[in-house]
Amino acid sequence: MSLLATTIAQIGPLDQNALEAARARQDQLTKPQGSLGRLEQLALQIAAITGQSRPRLSNPAVVVMAADHGIARQGVSAFPMEVTPQMVLNFLHGGAAINVLARHVGSQVVVVDMGVASDLPPHADLRVHKLGYGTNDFSQTAAMSREQAKAALETGITVANELIDSGIDLIATGDMGIGNTTASSAIVAAISGQPVAEVTGRGTGLDNQGLQRKIALISAALELHQPDRHDGLDVLAKVGGFELGGLAGVMIGAAARRVPVVVDGFISGAAALIACTVTPSLQPYLIAAHRSVERGHQAIFGQLDLEPLLDLNLRLGEGTGAVLGFSLCQAACKVLDEMATFGEAGVADKV
Amino acid sequence: MSLLATTIAQIGPLDQNALEAARARQDQLTKPQGSLGRLEQLALQIAAITGQSRPRLSNPAVVVMAADHGIARQGVSAFPMEVTPQMVLNFLHGGAAINVLARHVGSQVVVVDMGVASDLPPHADLRVHKLGYGTNDFSQTAAMSREQAKAALETGITVANELIDSGIDLIATGDMGIGNTTASSAIVAAISGQPVAEVTGRGTGLDNQGLQRKIALISAALELHQPDRHDGLDVLAKVGGFELGGLAGVMIGAAARRVPVVVDGFISGAAALIACTVTPSLQPYLIAAHRSVERGHQAIFGQLDLEPLLDLNLRLGEGTGAVLGFSLCQAACKVLDEMATFGEAGVADKV
Repeated sequence: MSLLATTIAQIGPLDQNALEAARARQDQLTKPQGSLGRLEQLALQIAAITGQSRPRLSNPAVVVMAADHGIARQGVSAFPMEVTPQMVLNFLHGGAAINVLARHVGSQVVVVDMGVASDLPPHADLRVHKLGYGTNDFSQTAAMSREQAKAALETGITVANELIDSGIDLIATGDMGIGNTTASSAIVAAISGQPVAEVTGRGTGLDNQGLQRKIALISAALELHQPDRHDGLDVLAKVGGFELGGLAGVMIGAAARRVPVVVDGFISGAAALIACTVTPSLQPYLIAAHRSVERGHQAIFGQLDLEPLLDLNLRLGEGTGAVLGFSLCQAACKVLDEMATFGEAGVADKV
Repeated sequence: MSLLATTIAQIGPLDQNALEAARARQDQLTKPQGSLGRLEQLALQIAAITGQSRPRLSNPAVVVMAADHGIARQGVSAFPMEVTPQMVLNFLHGGAAINVLARHVGSQVVVVDMGVASDLPPHADLRVHKLGYGTNDFSQTAAMSREQAKAALETGITVANELIDSGIDLIATGDMGIGNTTASSAIVAAISGQPVAEVTGRGTGLDNQGLQRKIALISAALELHQPDRHDGLDVLAKVGGFELGGLAGVMIGAAARRVPVVVDGFISGAAALIACTVTPSLQPYLIAAHRSVERGHQAIFGQLDLEPLLDLNLRLGEGTGAVLGFSLCQAACKVLDEMATFGEAGVADKV
């Protein structure tokens, strides 16, 4: 069996024993039951994912995957393509938003070149898994071959396994790639069946004319390629991106190891759609970090039955919303683990 | 002049120079302008409050004020009154949710007895500023005298000043007091003019019958006392609580010293209503942490023109939502301070 197939086979159901043990403890803590709302649900989900009734998440990492997109040559972004490698260097030098926010929450930043259109100078913290120098322009031809799509997923699985082997116990996904909201909207339209105009936004800041061109390009590409909405690899190959496939693989790899996955914004959400199409058993392992400004995000939540933790009008990507979500995941687990029970604290319970 | 009057006189307008300097820097950072949404607005607000173009918030404290409420004898809470002192001891021993979450974000917890109905054993970390052994039952008579109401505000101002003198640069409000959602709903109805039933919820978990009794008691009390909605001290005295007044004072005291105030949930929001009625110049200094489950919270946001950062279905109080807000305030400031500019990172700006 391939790495992809064996990994998918390892994704089991949530651990109901751990879930029930966590719930029993949570209901004894010195607060009205349910009064910590989403934090309580989150702690139970993490217990069920990890199989631990009092999980501790002490070693998080955000995987930021970067790649270029042939479709960017069609003028679908407010920023030029050279920004992709420039931002990768910014990540490596610690000056990007994801670096600042990851430091704030105590997370590693793992930077992966999945297919930037130029060669980056070697750097100790850069993982190079280039599947090409950017994808093909999917307004003309498929973004990549089916073999490349599968390789992208398997690369993500390998990265997740390496991180977990090194002690990482909480993983988030982040992205960098000029043009990747175009690929993501195409994926969302293909898999959700929503009209392209309903799931396509302004990305980094397109004007009205640019937005209309973006919608027209995606619509024409879907007409041209006719991706099979039930075949995640087909959708990824025809209109996706190398970083999108890599992130889908990270999610699958983490779930197979029972590590919670915090999904960033719209791009990561599109990767989650691909991953859950490939293997629906992934869904319970996902934690949606935030609701992006990008309008197609809601269709992803609907399709995957996820409810984001945060709604801060973010639209940056890189994993910035996801690392803010790390802090909530850790908070939820600490509440479950560290709070006193009514009995321990000598506090009267509800009358 | 009284401490209250001199403190109110010290609350100045926001610092427009610091705001503009922060905005100019923020617009040069390596991200599309506005792409960090609420975090960007938050950083600008904090710059304008503190008067610093690159503020750092490194020393936060949550002030948890506790008191009892005579109205609790009318059966308006799912928990018995003895829970107030029991939970104060829990705070002092570090076992409550606020302790766990404050540790998570690196915040001090400052516990103040503003009027618990029993004497607590002395503890190095307990500040005793008792204004009484619980308020009067406001279904019968005013909760406190106008002098006590003023003393509650001035106590809060004094606590804020002491904390700021000791180096605290970010303050949140938290509460403990069985019966205090009843007092808070009465305050919200009085000041907002909304119907009592629209601003009264289940608190720690009332059943339907209890909720109807709570609404009837508040309605009757407002009819009896006729509080003047334009006079915050009158509303506080007639239907408020000692901790509510204390928290209002903390907010006023912090604003006078240009320290941002993170307002927790419904109880803290009612205190903010009192404080802003006493001095409308306070409003720009407030940061609403989260949207509570408690239904009257929305009326507070409408009245104060505030938009909460988080929406996690919390309804615990203690400052639990506020300390989660601390982390976002610090994140916003670190982004403003630590990110590289386009020029520094050699990244191309928007085409």
